[in-house]
Amino acid sequence: MRTDPLSQTFSALADPTRRAILARLALGEATVTELAEPFDMSLPGVSKHLKVLQHAGLVVQGRNAQWRPCRLEPTPLHDVASWVEQYRRLWEARLDRLDQYLRDLQTQEATDARTDP
Amino acid sequence: MRTDPLSQTFSALADPTRRAILARLALGEATVTELAEPFDMSLPGVSKHLKVLQHAGLVVQGRNAQWRPCRLEPTPLHDVASWVEQYRRLWEARLDRLDQYLRDLQTQEATDARTDP
Repeated sequence: MRTDPLSQTFSALADPTRRAILARLALGEATVTELAEPFDMSLPGVSKHLKVLQHAGLVVQGRNAQWRPCRLEPTPLHDVASWVEQYRRLWEARLDRLDQYLRDLQTQEATDARTDP
Repeated sequence: MRTDPLSQTFSALADPTRRAILARLALGEATVTELAEPFDMSLPGVSKHLKVLQHAGLVVQGRNAQWRPCRLEPTPLHDVASWVEQYRRLWEARLDRLDQYLRDLQTQEATDARTDP
């Protein structure tokens, strides 16, 4: 069974090291060695994570044999943003309800303070 | 090693059936039986997916023993939106470049058409 592209993207993002690699690449291209530096991780360990990101189309590696810089490919992230956007009204409604609850609480406290003997 | 909440959310979203369950719950509460209906899947199969979604905090199930409706909890989706938002400038820059490329191509074609013998 082939994994659909969006599932593959979500799966690739389900790891803090892979998200940190993307955050680094958002600043600009980097070699595998440069990417490995901030992590307490072997080059093969970083390469393994990079393979998952490449497979999901989130990272593209240059073909130059000497210096093969990795760069972030943002299109799958755009797809994630479009997908999650359809749920915006739900979390906004939740935040509105929380806001209303806090207002009601303040009004109640003010009333209590005035009517306390 | 405990999985961080965002990784857990991404992992739960990395499946088309689980995303379809969320899409159904976005319309309103539903029982496990109601959720299983549109899928060619056994109740235990749906329950397994629901457990992953509950574990990630994306679905909450009511405690009423007779009718335990599931509802969508949108807060983890808000966290996904906030995370992906930081990459917006990257995909917008990409779309701007594509737009510019298409404009250049049109200009070139118009020039070619005028200068063609």
